[in-house]
Amino acid sequence: MKRTAFFISDGTGITAETLGQSLLTQFENIQFTKRLRPYVDTIEKARNMVQQINAAAEQDGARPIIFDTVVNKEIREELAKANAFMIDIFSSFLAPLEQELGDGSSYSVGKSHSIQHNAHYKDRIDAVHFAMDNDDGARTHYYNEADIILVGVSRCGKTPSCLYMALQYGIRAANYPLTEDDMERLQLPAALKQHKHKLFGLTIDPDRLASIRNERRPNSRYASFAQCEFEVREVENLFRRENIDFINSTHFSVEEISAKILVQMGIERRLK
Amino acid sequence: MKRTAFFISDGTGITAETLGQSLLTQFENIQFTKRLRPYVDTIEKARNMVQQINAAAEQDGARPIIFDTVVNKEIREELAKANAFMIDIFSSFLAPLEQELGDGSSYSVGKSHSIQHNAHYKDRIDAVHFAMDNDDGARTHYYNEADIILVGVSRCGKTPSCLYMALQYGIRAANYPLTEDDMERLQLPAALKQHKHKLFGLTIDPDRLASIRNERRPNSRYASFAQCEFEVREVENLFRRENIDFINSTHFSVEEISAKILVQMGIERRLK
Repeated sequence: MKRTAFFISDGTGITAETLGQSLLTQFENIQFTKRLRPYVDTIEKARNMVQQINAAAEQDGARPIIFDTVVNKEIREELAKANAFMIDIFSSFLAPLEQELGDGSSYSVGKSHSIQHNAHYKDRIDAVHFAMDNDDGARTHYYNEADIILVGVSRCGKTPSCLYMALQYGIRAANYPLTEDDMERLQLPAALKQHKHKLFGLTIDPDRLASIRNERRPNSRYASFAQCEFEVREVENLFRRENIDFINSTHFSVEEISAKILVQMGIERRLK
Repeated sequence: MKRTAFFISDGTGITAETLGQSLLTQFENIQFTKRLRPYVDTIEKARNMVQQINAAAEQDGARPIIFDTVVNKEIREELAKANAFMIDIFSSFLAPLEQELGDGSSYSVGKSHSIQHNAHYKDRIDAVHFAMDNDDGARTHYYNEADIILVGVSRCGKTPSCLYMALQYGIRAANYPLTEDDMERLQLPAALKQHKHKLFGLTIDPDRLASIRNERRPNSRYASFAQCEFEVREVENLFRRENIDFINSTHFSVEEISAKILVQMGIERRLK
């Protein structure tokens, strides 16, 4: 069965998309075509949306689902004219929250993802630059400024995890690749030893690692299963010997890896 | 007035946090302390949460707000024992969606941000590596693989915007800094000319640029207001002359910049 889902907002649409995606993943038997439509902030754009929605209804033979976080009432009413099932996210929750908080909502558009309402925005951007500058062991003399240092074999997912933590939470995350040299010495590199409390390990299944490395350097020793298995085993042994917490990235997304790391290390996330 | 808000999930908590943050920004008169609590996936952890919530209630002199996306009914019932106002996100919408879709929800935990339910996860990770490798004009011979090439003066926000587009949407975004050399020639660098349809400009207020550059190289010519003003003026002139769409990043977050770029360039986002 096919249905189209529209995530519509007069802002970035991030909230509508995030909630809509979460809800739709619960329905496994239906194949959804997903459309993100940010900045629907005029009646004219809303009318254009209605046409797109009605066209999808006709094509699918079933009315689309709308997830919207449109604040403007007139625009919302225009959208409601479409042949669709509308989940009006803000309306559902703002009235009960107003009652609970004894305060009126400001009903203003697009605040959640604006700089103005994000006290830690600068921290997030600084953290992105920190992650870039301290990626892949490029330099180690700023580790005193790091909140966390991810360690693991080459291509086990350290870089995207660091960037996600930086962008999403303003966490200053460096990463350091453990190479064969470090393994043969069977100890932590000197640069890491003094920051041991900040270390967190990533590991990965050897066959997955081999497949990732083969995309980068096909048929190399670096990408061979034997080499990958050796490195993973040595690094996991190192983690255990040095009492470094670690998780296996093979089956987890950067969102999940980050959430698990932060829970395990007890870093209180810096929320806006 | 002070209130504590808890974003609680048996998964990453991203959905609960995103929606909760959006709703709370609408209440400007209240100062919220925000607590993200992912992986609350056992009754024991839920009991521990209840204690934290009740402690916050006592400290604030007002009951906390809970935004939860906990799928497990027993855990949700445990949380409901806390002295709090609970906004149960999934429960509110799953029943009406089940009716509309004529299909039962699978009521499974943490699917939205898992690899398994994210067909484009690999695209996102590949896009992150693409953005890293093609950052800051480091190399230009892979521009044929780019979806978009951000151009602008040094430190106007190109890198974080590219990384956000990559991580969030799997967009392959390169970026190229326009330097004084390019300005004096008053034309686009050769590497960019052949990809003109992929170019998007970022600009920034000169005083903001000077302040950002001063953090990096204090009191340098590079960071002087006169230099910043010159570069910004020249680059904006170039954008206009070459008909390159551009936006001013000064007052916009990476989320907003990305959403605006994608709308303006008509890139259909690759949603999971």
